[in-house]
Amino acid sequence: MTDSSFDDINRAVLAAEKAFESFGQSPPTSVAGLLEKIADEIANPGESLINTASQETGLTIDRLTGERTRTLNQLRMFAALVRQSSTRDPRFDAAMEDRKPARRPDIRRILVPIGPVAVWAASNFPLAFSVAGGDTASALAAGCPVVLKAHPGHPETSSLVASAVSKAVASSGLPAGVFSMLEGSSPAVSLALMRHPKIAAGAFTGSLRAGRALFDAACARPDPIPFFAEMGSLNPVFILPGALNERAATIAAGLAQSVNFGIGQLCTSPGLIVVQEDAEYEGFIETLRKLFEGAPAGKMLTPAIAKTYRDSVTGIQAVDGILSTQALETGLPGRPVIFETNVSTFLAHEHLRQEVFGPATIVVRCTSPGEMQQVAESLEGSLTATVQAAASDLGGHTLLLATLARKAGRLIHNGYPTGVEVCGAMHHGGPYPASSDARFTSVGTAAIARFHRPLCFQDFPQEWLPSELRDA
Amino acid sequence: MTDSSFDDINRAVLAAEKAFESFGQSPPTSVAGLLEKIADEIANPGESLINTASQETGLTIDRLTGERTRTLNQLRMFAALVRQSSTRDPRFDAAMEDRKPARRPDIRRILVPIGPVAVWAASNFPLAFSVAGGDTASALAAGCPVVLKAHPGHPETSSLVASAVSKAVASSGLPAGVFSMLEGSSPAVSLALMRHPKIAAGAFTGSLRAGRALFDAACARPDPIPFFAEMGSLNPVFILPGALNERAATIAAGLAQSVNFGIGQLCTSPGLIVVQEDAEYEGFIETLRKLFEGAPAGKMLTPAIAKTYRDSVTGIQAVDGILSTQALETGLPGRPVIFETNVSTFLAHEHLRQEVFGPATIVVRCTSPGEMQQVAESLEGSLTATVQAAASDLGGHTLLLATLARKAGRLIHNGYPTGVEVCGAMHHGGPYPASSDARFTSVGTAAIARFHRPLCFQDFPQEWLPSELRDA
Repeated sequence: MTDSSFDDINRAVLAAEKAFESFGQSPPTSVAGLLEKIADEIANPGESLINTASQETGLTIDRLTGERTRTLNQLRMFAALVRQSSTRDPRFDAAMEDRKPARRPDIRRILVPIGPVAVWAASNFPLAFSVAGGDTASALAAGCPVVLKAHPGHPETSSLVASAVSKAVASSGLPAGVFSMLEGSSPAVSLALMRHPKIAAGAFTGSLRAGRALFDAACARPDPIPFFAEMGSLNPVFILPGALNERAATIAAGLAQSVNFGIGQLCTSPGLIVVQEDAEYEGFIETLRKLFEGAPAGKMLTPAIAKTYRDSVTGIQAVDGILSTQALETGLPGRPVIFETNVSTFLAHEHLRQEVFGPATIVVRCTSPGEMQQVAESLEGSLTATVQAAASDLGGHTLLLATLARKAGRLIHNGYPTGVEVCGAMHHGGPYPASSDARFTSVGTAAIARFHRPLCFQDFPQEWLPSELRDA
Repeated sequence: MTDSSFDDINRAVLAAEKAFESFGQSPPTSVAGLLEKIADEIANPGESLINTASQETGLTIDRLTGERTRTLNQLRMFAALVRQSSTRDPRFDAAMEDRKPARRPDIRRILVPIGPVAVWAASNFPLAFSVAGGDTASALAAGCPVVLKAHPGHPETSSLVASAVSKAVASSGLPAGVFSMLEGSSPAVSLALMRHPKIAAGAFTGSLRAGRALFDAACARPDPIPFFAEMGSLNPVFILPGALNERAATIAAGLAQSVNFGIGQLCTSPGLIVVQEDAEYEGFIETLRKLFEGAPAGKMLTPAIAKTYRDSVTGIQAVDGILSTQALETGLPGRPVIFETNVSTFLAHEHLRQEVFGPATIVVRCTSPGEMQQVAESLEGSLTATVQAAASDLGGHTLLLATLARKAGRLIHNGYPTGVEVCGAMHHGGPYPASSDARFTSVGTAAIARFHRPLCFQDFPQEWLPSELRDA
């Protein structure tokens, strides 16, 4: 893969800006038709797309087949959404001709597309959060052309999907600038894209470091633009005493599966397990240890991710007071690892509260509800927070629930954070550093709100109003 | 007025954070009751509040009486809004127990208050955009405690209103930390407030310079927070040929009134008038000139604003190719001024396209529709854009309308930009530099969206869900 040149970037953005003139005015049926065609075109190459993605990322065929389904469903979900025409929130305030001291004008408001959107593809979902993933689907659904920065971890997959999208754009009779793909492993490409004066908004899924750098660039523009970065998180799981008593082995099995799913390379992977010690505790940790020992090491998405994972694990291991609960084989970078520690060690080391991207998790053993609360209060923002609770547990943990509600975008009861439903009520975003703006989501139908802005019409004649704002 | 100390700031924010624990969970009726009590308490001092405000700001009793009505109406509008309980956008996706390959969990989502909000009062609306203005009302309506930074231009007015708010908070049985006021004319106070770790969002109305400095501080925090700055704008008015032909004198009168209302110290004051020259043009400009000559100079809000206004006017006057259409009396800082220029001069000088806060406007004389379009394309983002058009005009200016729709938050047909309706369909925000995020408004019921974030509940038992999310 060669880095796109500044000329390539400029050309793509100017084509998007030009395409916006017509695409931004397209009727909902036309936008919906495009999204459906993109889904059809992505489905077309069949297994060859899945095989390519598997070779490039190390993810299994099963996992990628499921991810393709999700990708097609997302595109079709947004198509259905815009067909309903309910995404543009039309609002009406009728004139009051005789109001004193002054006439009230006729005010109508509707959401309009914000302009060309830059999207950064993620490494870990080469289909669902990549070229034609949720960000692209929601931006197109809003009526915004997309300039997509491909992830260097899966160039062939990206190229296949980009061709599918461009084919759908062409067969819909839309200008090619509705979708362009850029390539680059250098931050210079991303920064040039972010700083282009005709880019109106951006969306990103990836690491905190890259997301923050792009956020800073978005804010430092002469004209700052909205930028949504989903940067992953710790996703703490709190196991309350009644739940541990009732079903320690079931919870251990669920956690091992959730941590190790996709070699732990998910933004919702649970990186912290908080348990109050009691009679069941030793059995619980022993079960977890065995499950982690038995879990296979896997190929990670990229050599850089594998290296960062190994460095992070080594860093945790070096902390005095950290117990690694199984023998670590340092030769295997994608090796699942479970650590154990007490509250004072956990609180003393800030880097224990930061996400490790990979199949590692830390069990923090608390000796009281107060310690559990201290752990909760020490946490930064997270995409999710989970409680495993028996019916009797929650009443004694209202403060904990209130604390977690401040820290997370999604609260989970008796489940696991991985597996993000794509639906209207989903919120995939959370207080910083989980995302750059906790008010928006990158998963589910509400993701479209990132790319709309209100436009208000005062006293306009009927025929010059958008159709949704005309009198019925 | 003494600047609040860092201790004062810290105390106020920590009190807000503490108050948020209960206030953020308050039922809508309690929040609505508070807003209504605040309105009642502000009404209580009667004329003494109006007189104080007039003495401090130079604004007339009439104007301030109207502004008080607006302030009370805003508070009551938000009270009515939260009583409807429709502000929290509850969303439901039912579980599908038998879905393959995995069960679909029960997902429910609701908007929750974001946390303590910092609000910066504006100079030019000592009631409606100040201590208990729209920002405070919408933040409280969302369930967020407010730490208010008073504007140094009207300290006594601020103090009277702050007492009224605090009295309403106390008589509602709410913790005092629901509302605190800080004072300061030094940027250090504002920056310390913006950087306090427990502040979760901010709102500001004022100058581009101050707004951008605060925006930069919000983005540069270790954990960036949402910050909405409404920073005023040029508010261009395009007079199309048919309209000039039909009613040049009426338009001139409307413009003179709109520019000079409140000594031009409104964020929606029209700072640019774009006209195509024809037979009516000379008569139009002559009428405007006479109206501006006859308009009285007025006391501006603060000495600093008066000085900036005089400097801006002098700077425009110094441009080669700028015609001042009436004799300028330099002794009077609040003197209405109208300039005239051609398109090439206008395009050559960037500072002619920037807002002047005060009763000045520039008429740009175009010789063709193409020149009018060039002017439109040269503009930065604006809160409003106005067209004065005859029935026959719009058909020949579709490109102009499309361009203005990209540049503004509100399009006005045959009206004037001053006089912002407070209603559900209003949008008072626009592409930068009109505001820091074109997706939000600071006027109207939608202003509440700045201070909400979604919170998602997965598989929670009924009794632990917020009441709006429980099964009916």
